[in-house]
Amino acid sequence: MTLALFHNLTLASMTDGPTPYGLMPKGALVAEAGQVLWSGPQAELPAAFAAVPAHDLGRRLVTPALIDCHTHVVHGGNRANEFEMRLNGASYEEVARAGGGIVSTVSATRTATEAELLASALPRVDAMIAEGVAVIEVKSGYGLDIETELRMLRAARAIGQHRDVTIRTSFLGAHAVPADFAGRADAYIDTVAIPALRTAHAEGLVDAVDGFCEGIAFQPEQIARVFDVARDLGLPMKLHAEQLSNLGGTKLAASYGALSADHIEYLDEDGVAAMARAGMTAVILPGAFYTLRETQKPPVALLRKHRVPMAVSTDANPGSSPMTSLLLAMNMACTLFRLTPEEALAGTTRNAARALGMADRGTLAPGQRADLAVWDVAHPAELAYRIGFNPLYKRIIGGTL
Amino acid sequence: MTLALFHNLTLASMTDGPTPYGLMPKGALVAEAGQVLWSGPQAELPAAFAAVPAHDLGRRLVTPALIDCHTHVVHGGNRANEFEMRLNGASYEEVARAGGGIVSTVSATRTATEAELLASALPRVDAMIAEGVAVIEVKSGYGLDIETELRMLRAARAIGQHRDVTIRTSFLGAHAVPADFAGRADAYIDTVAIPALRTAHAEGLVDAVDGFCEGIAFQPEQIARVFDVARDLGLPMKLHAEQLSNLGGTKLAASYGALSADHIEYLDEDGVAAMARAGMTAVILPGAFYTLRETQKPPVALLRKHRVPMAVSTDANPGSSPMTSLLLAMNMACTLFRLTPEEALAGTTRNAARALGMADRGTLAPGQRADLAVWDVAHPAELAYRIGFNPLYKRIIGGTL
Ligand SMILES: [Zn+2]
Ligand SMILES: [Zn+2]
Repeated sequence: MTLALFHNLTLASMTDGPTPYGLMPKGALVAEAGQVLWSGPQAELPAAFAAVPAHDLGRRLVTPALIDCHTHVVHGGNRANEFEMRLNGASYEEVARAGGGIVSTVSATRTATEAELLASALPRVDAMIAEGVAVIEVKSGYGLDIETELRMLRAARAIGQHRDVTIRTSFLGAHAVPADFAGRADAYIDTVAIPALRTAHAEGLVDAVDGFCEGIAFQPEQIARVFDVARDLGLPMKLHAEQLSNLGGTKLAASYGALSADHIEYLDEDGVAAMARAGMTAVILPGAFYTLRETQKPPVALLRKHRVPMAVSTDANPGSSPMTSLLLAMNMACTLFRLTPEEALAGTTRNAARALGMADRGTLAPGQRADLAVWDVAHPAELAYRIGFNPLYKRIIGGTL
Repeated sequence: MTLALFHNLTLASMTDGPTPYGLMPKGALVAEAGQVLWSGPQAELPAAFAAVPAHDLGRRLVTPALIDCHTHVVHGGNRANEFEMRLNGASYEEVARAGGGIVSTVSATRTATEAELLASALPRVDAMIAEGVAVIEVKSGYGLDIETELRMLRAARAIGQHRDVTIRTSFLGAHAVPADFAGRADAYIDTVAIPALRTAHAEGLVDAVDGFCEGIAFQPEQIARVFDVARDLGLPMKLHAEQLSNLGGTKLAASYGALSADHIEYLDEDGVAAMARAGMTAVILPGAFYTLRETQKPPVALLRKHRVPMAVSTDANPGSSPMTSLLLAMNMACTLFRLTPEEALAGTTRNAARALGMADRGTLAPGQRADLAVWDVAHPAELAYRIGFNPLYKRIIGGTL
């Protein structure tokens, strides 16, 4: 297989160890067959690699390619109208009467073809790729009927055929109770969410199963019924939990051995401890916190105390986080939640991979995929420091420039 | 002179009138000699223009090109290290002892050549241009000695020779008291700021005179001495005022007929009324508010009540607002300060031009410069709605694609 040497670079391997960021100022990296074969100080490059085709990266910073582990980039329409109505003083009721809220996204998504869903998602995906992203998780959840949930997942899969990016799908049938099931959430779970999940799984459309456990969405018992099916099907789980209140969703997710609990602004120490015991990852979503002007912050100190890994993601969605910049999510995680720049970068590399159950990426240790982001910066702290600036020089995917 | 017709577009002329945004869904625009000659409904295009070379803009949205009216994009170094230290728990004193704060930017700027200052500014300028910006105001103020203040302004002017963007310089000698003048602010004003201003003006480097009126910077009486010189030289004035406390800087600026007061989080109704009487523009800088995690918001309701126009800008600077996205500044102005999307767009077009005293741009009325931004969006509210996403299709500068 092809070997490639990347040299004259600062390496931030994001491997766990004594050095912050796994930082190595005069580093080099050898890729083979899409994987990292060797990385270390350039001065210690084994003689065996002396003749390997070499790429001089001009002293730039190399990190693992970024991973956006929680997005809703596939959806119909946008909610700019509602954004404007609210800023012009419209009440919640007026917005709802004008067809605003998640209802508007559901109806725009239901009327969109798979090709239209794909076409509208691609500019958002391109914005992420332009910032060094190589893996994007994409959720369903704006169909809320069987056919549209499947169509969203097919559009998500299609992204991976149109762009050089790995797509991981999450089935999010239990995202909201659609209008036609108002007051009948259980019936929705039984007759739509679970059948949709089984069909989507049979079509190979589901990499994980997600839900929204909240007063305005589903109760833990309802999520549990979806998770029971996920367990039967052998699918990993994750959950939108404790975003606006503490319903115990995280503990439920922990009891199923879920990969992650996401948002978790209202999670208490009990819940954090449950996450730690279950080996879960906390997915921190500052874009929604910012957009909704929330004041309750996720329990970062408790997550550190219990050594729960933190991932950071855009939550890209048309309502509560119309954000497509993962670098900005890193800045917001630092500015709003006081993560360190190193935690923010771990949150979009190593821990984002963990939140998706992907063991083969997120660091640049030997054996990992050679998905690199090359940056025009001197130090990795600059990635979270800047606001609305993209210093990406190039992505290197599978060891190929 | 060359005529050009742009048609099949949605026009948001940003002219004051009965229609929000001056919106015209099926519009057309004719440019001649770099100016808007005619704009209106496509169906009413005068027969005289039927043979003009035509550009079909595919139903895209056309707005005035954006104007970033308050930036510090020319500076040496960055402050990522300090950002990281603080997030790792360092105290103000520890950061200062490590050489952090504005001192670090001053020393990096003093040691940079004009070419180095230009080279480091250009990627930031390019990020702005990529979002449809056609005018950037650039301040001095990190030299704090005569030679470096002049060098910053020369680097700012040079930007306009390297990029298709109009640069407006502001002399900001009264930005901070440098270490060598600690406790001797008056001496600094007399022996550095004022002589630097006179020399810079003689070299044609100064379009306006700015200052920082704050407890940590200069008192109104000291600013007044700089403004007296500006008045003698016939230069317009603007002022960083009332950002962290109410010292009366805005009233002082009003008494000099200044163009704008910038930040003004702590401004009271008296000050707002003074701005209104003086015809000043309020420059709203949400990036600094966000980065410093301030809680006191600018008096938006009072500014509306007294009909003081609001501009919105990045405040791009390495310390309190390392932000280069004017679209993000618009989103933050809406999300954090509750401006409407229309106010936010007026703030980066019509009112930003006003804050710079530029009467020939900021709207697309006949006679204005034909500097357009063409966007891949259906409605102008989408520009402020999205977070970290750039929907620019193309800039059209002086009527030329
Ligand atoms: Zn979500
Ligand atoms: Zn400033």
